[in-house]
Amino acid sequence: MRTGDIKTPALIADSKILEANISTMASRRPGKSLRPHIKAFKSTELAKKLVQAGHETFCCATIRELEGMVDAGMGADLLLANETLDTTRLKNLLLKENCRITVAVDSKETIAVAAAAGIQEVLIDINVGLPRCGCSPEDAGFLADQARKSGLEIRGVMGYEGHLMHDPDTLRRTTKTEESMEILISAHETVGGDIISGGGTGTWDCNQAVTELQAGSYVLMDGDYSKLDLPFKEGLLLLTTVISRSKSGYAVLDGGLKSLSVDSGNPKLFDQGDVMFCSDEHTTVTNGSWSVGQRVGLRPSHIDPTIAKHELIYLVDEIEEGLDSEVIGILNIDLRGW
Amino acid sequence: MRTGDIKTPALIADSKILEANISTMASRRPGKSLRPHIKAFKSTELAKKLVQAGHETFCCATIRELEGMVDAGMGADLLLANETLDTTRLKNLLLKENCRITVAVDSKETIAVAAAAGIQEVLIDINVGLPRCGCSPEDAGFLADQARKSGLEIRGVMGYEGHLMHDPDTLRRTTKTEESMEILISAHETVGGDIISGGGTGTWDCNQAVTELQAGSYVLMDGDYSKLDLPFKEGLLLLTTVISRSKSGYAVLDGGLKSLSVDSGNPKLFDQGDVMFCSDEHTTVTNGSWSVGQRVGLRPSHIDPTIAKHELIYLVDEIEEGLDSEVIGILNIDLRGW
Repeated sequence: MRTGDIKTPALIADSKILEANISTMASRRPGKSLRPHIKAFKSTELAKKLVQAGHETFCCATIRELEGMVDAGMGADLLLANETLDTTRLKNLLLKENCRITVAVDSKETIAVAAAAGIQEVLIDINVGLPRCGCSPEDAGFLADQARKSGLEIRGVMGYEGHLMHDPDTLRRTTKTEESMEILISAHETVGGDIISGGGTGTWDCNQAVTELQAGSYVLMDGDYSKLDLPFKEGLLLLTTVISRSKSGYAVLDGGLKSLSVDSGNPKLFDQGDVMFCSDEHTTVTNGSWSVGQRVGLRPSHIDPTIAKHELIYLVDEIEEGLDSEVIGILNIDLRGW
Repeated sequence: MRTGDIKTPALIADSKILEANISTMASRRPGKSLRPHIKAFKSTELAKKLVQAGHETFCCATIRELEGMVDAGMGADLLLANETLDTTRLKNLLLKENCRITVAVDSKETIAVAAAAGIQEVLIDINVGLPRCGCSPEDAGFLADQARKSGLEIRGVMGYEGHLMHDPDTLRRTTKTEESMEILISAHETVGGDIISGGGTGTWDCNQAVTELQAGSYVLMDGDYSKLDLPFKEGLLLLTTVISRSKSGYAVLDGGLKSLSVDSGNPKLFDQGDVMFCSDEHTTVTNGSWSVGQRVGLRPSHIDPTIAKHELIYLVDEIEEGLDSEVIGILNIDLRGW
């Protein structure tokens, strides 16, 4: 099967880039010093490539991801790097064999849920500047005490500096990450445990504070992360077909808002031209020359929500000009949904 | 089952609003004067409610939607209101029983594909101002001749004034729609056939030119369409749970970019407060008072790509304050994908 045989729109990934990105990260952050984040790609088949690269601990953002990772035999040390109030599903998850589930908690309520579900280990989630989950740093000790009183073991802390992740100024990103991580280190001194978990693709080399980095997007990258000075390359394309062409110069591709996410901006064309706009089923492109029926690739600006729209990614040996490559495998996006 | 039993994030729809929207449209545009667009909701179960309201012809945007509609027994008169170059899948579709498939064409290439696939009927797709599919109006006659020479029957024309659909100024929307439809009427005079197909939710009452209106979003509406002065009401909510709360005033919901689309702006809160921002799994909200574990509803700004992210919609009798309603049914989103 070749890319020309794929019905469009469909995601294709460059396996050479995927392997290189995984290898680059693993050489700097081997084994458990990386806790790859499953949320970025939602695929147990892709996670297995990370196991082959030496990683054995993973982050998940949803209970669905935890369930699927345990079922696929990768439940040895999973962190729900997110808060949940769903006692029932956590409890059912623990009925599965061969799983060790650590949960992030940032409130009395999430501690109570973890304890009621039979969870044994937690991280105290600390707000390190991003207005999202995580307790105030000054509450870390109190919550750790609460958790211990509830019978939970504290493995350490986590704190995600998501507000710094996409800062294109490397020096500023580095300095601000250090400041942000000082909050986390200080909380860790109060809370105890072995783990300081945080960071991501954008701070992969400037975050020296964490004992484990929570990166995921680096495996295939996207338009937003590629604005930074990172060694990882973009390896994901939305493969589309030109279905219409106007005499006034633009062409229309058969992929749009339902097949890629524009929350971080419009996609970029793999080859020539500019994107005018995306609508539900279409992307209108201009400043190039296309023929009806031609295959055209779009680079998504944000891979996480783009991949979540698809059932699978076609893995090709190498994405080349002309977009005619051998399909060498399929990565099922089996961890979609919730 | 009540909404409190639903795992979040999940879509819920107000059945009273759904029925009222369907009824309002059917009273103005009964039977075949509406060709409801399946792309908006991708559900054969919802389509069956439109059959009950008297409609029997439908628009689809993808071959997957056509296949599913035929399989569900609603293939009596389906229009692919979109261009396709996929001969194989069109041909396979025609092997199914009880289906009449009309395809939009706007080029020699799409005409050749339709003919090669064994399609018998087409509409000539005319560009009426939106820079997307549709031939130049002056090419309509030439393409109609081409189609007839290829053995295709011309049922008429279609032209979608999508660039006017969301104009909040009713008078301007009306005037510009009339101008746009003059192009379509003129092309129809050249091309012939019984059908003039076009329009949508935003021009449902100001487009007097079309013999059939291609509206779909009106069934559940969204934040973007609700800015217009339309009689249809918003009936869809993303049900979420508050998973974290900050002492500084904001709260964090467990639904974000993977469960709703922000291409037309951030969602709005059903009840109190303002959305600060959406990220992959979260929406941070402020200017309200929430407790951890509380259910909160978000109104999506654009339902089509939001619904396409979900496997199903929970249908409730009525969405009320407190978000504790009886679940009276499920609408499977069975036409997702391509």
